[in-house]
Amino acid sequence: MSEQTDPAPGGDGTGGDWRPSREAVIDLLGLLALGELLAFERMAVDARLAPDLGRRARLGEAAVGEIRNYRLLADRLSALGVDPAEAMAPFQEAFRTFDAKTSPRDWLEALVKVYVGDAVGDDFFRAVAPKLESEDRALIERVLEEGSAAGLAADEIRAAVESDPAAAGRLSLWARRLIGEGINRALAVSAAHESLTGLISGDGGSVDELLRTLTRAHQERMRAVGLNN
Amino acid sequence: MSEQTDPAPGGDGTGGDWRPSREAVIDLLGLLALGELLAFERMAVDARLAPDLGRRARLGEAAVGEIRNYRLLADRLSALGVDPAEAMAPFQEAFRTFDAKTSPRDWLEALVKVYVGDAVGDDFFRAVAPKLESEDRALIERVLEEGSAAGLAADEIRAAVESDPAAAGRLSLWARRLIGEGINRALAVSAAHESLTGLISGDGGSVDELLRTLTRAHQERMRAVGLNN
Repeated sequence: MSEQTDPAPGGDGTGGDWRPSREAVIDLLGLLALGELLAFERMAVDARLAPDLGRRARLGEAAVGEIRNYRLLADRLSALGVDPAEAMAPFQEAFRTFDAKTSPRDWLEALVKVYVGDAVGDDFFRAVAPKLESEDRALIERVLEEGSAAGLAADEIRAAVESDPAAAGRLSLWARRLIGEGINRALAVSAAHESLTGLISGDGGSVDELLRTLTRAHQERMRAVGLNN
Repeated sequence: MSEQTDPAPGGDGTGGDWRPSREAVIDLLGLLALGELLAFERMAVDARLAPDLGRRARLGEAAVGEIRNYRLLADRLSALGVDPAEAMAPFQEAFRTFDAKTSPRDWLEALVKVYVGDAVGDDFFRAVAPKLESEDRALIERVLEEGSAAGLAADEIRAAVESDPAAAGRLSLWARRLIGEGINRALAVSAAHESLTGLISGDGGSVDELLRTLTRAHQERMRAVGLNN
């Protein structure tokens, strides 16, 4: 809370006079909003892969948190005078490509996708928050407060891997494919949107560095559910 | 509110000593809970047919009301000592058949399905509520309070039909197919679940009569958005 009256982004020793451009903030909020909207849809759709109605409903209910986050981000875009749909549109193709290449074939693959996507998403939110000014930082904190679906997925993955060790290899491979495709899409998005690259590197750091940090955290989480890298 | 302390279902002149069986109430709550859960999923899935991200998000957000209703009904089943998944399972095949035969090919067909399904669902809730005892009646009232997705769909359908009169014929035909398949499924469910037939007819009325009432209301709603029967 020490940053609440600080108009400049915290930064890490590079001085407090750097500020993200309006364009970069809109791009970032559009990217995050679309990510939340599509995570909602994906979870609702993939819930159909559940082996029983109880789990199916639980994944659907977990999806609600994502669309709530979408609403928070969309409202902020509207407050900035931007149509959320317009801010999201530039990123639609990247997500479409990602989803087309990572369509889960069964319930466990769907859960790994939720687990990886949700956690990497949260890490990304945490990494970009310090680059933003106080109002947007507060928004990101609210988004991160929303109960994560990753916990639900992690418990199931861990139990599945324990009861069927052969599943670990298959799901580890699947997680590598998810993260590989995710990195490809992230690089394509950052190459096409200089404003975002500027935001990420403007206050110290780089897109490559961010991807390495996200990947490292991802690898630790994989081990936490009994998968390997 | 006059019925709040009345332990017997209101009825309509047949006397107040008839009560639904526990089995019938569980069947009914299971049917309604599954209907809400699947309506949620269907809307989230069909949102992908939207012509733009703004409408896509609005349909996803409207779907949240359905899964909230699912939670209310599932909690009531749990309170009655029944696993919601078990109470829903007997009706899964009927919904699966219905959805397989009524998969929308475009955004307007998806909206007509939301409009018809949501409104017929609400009418069904209203029709069965008086058959229930006070606690379950109060639950149904809470379910009906949840903002309906039908309004959103109706506005879009009306606008589409006004701007393209040829759409009216196609969508009218589609709505007839939806209601025809719905009646088929309702008859199959009632034939397989005597408890439900008993609940519907136990206090006066019959399944046929209920279906006629629902169909009549449906036809009026069709006219309200510029479609014909």
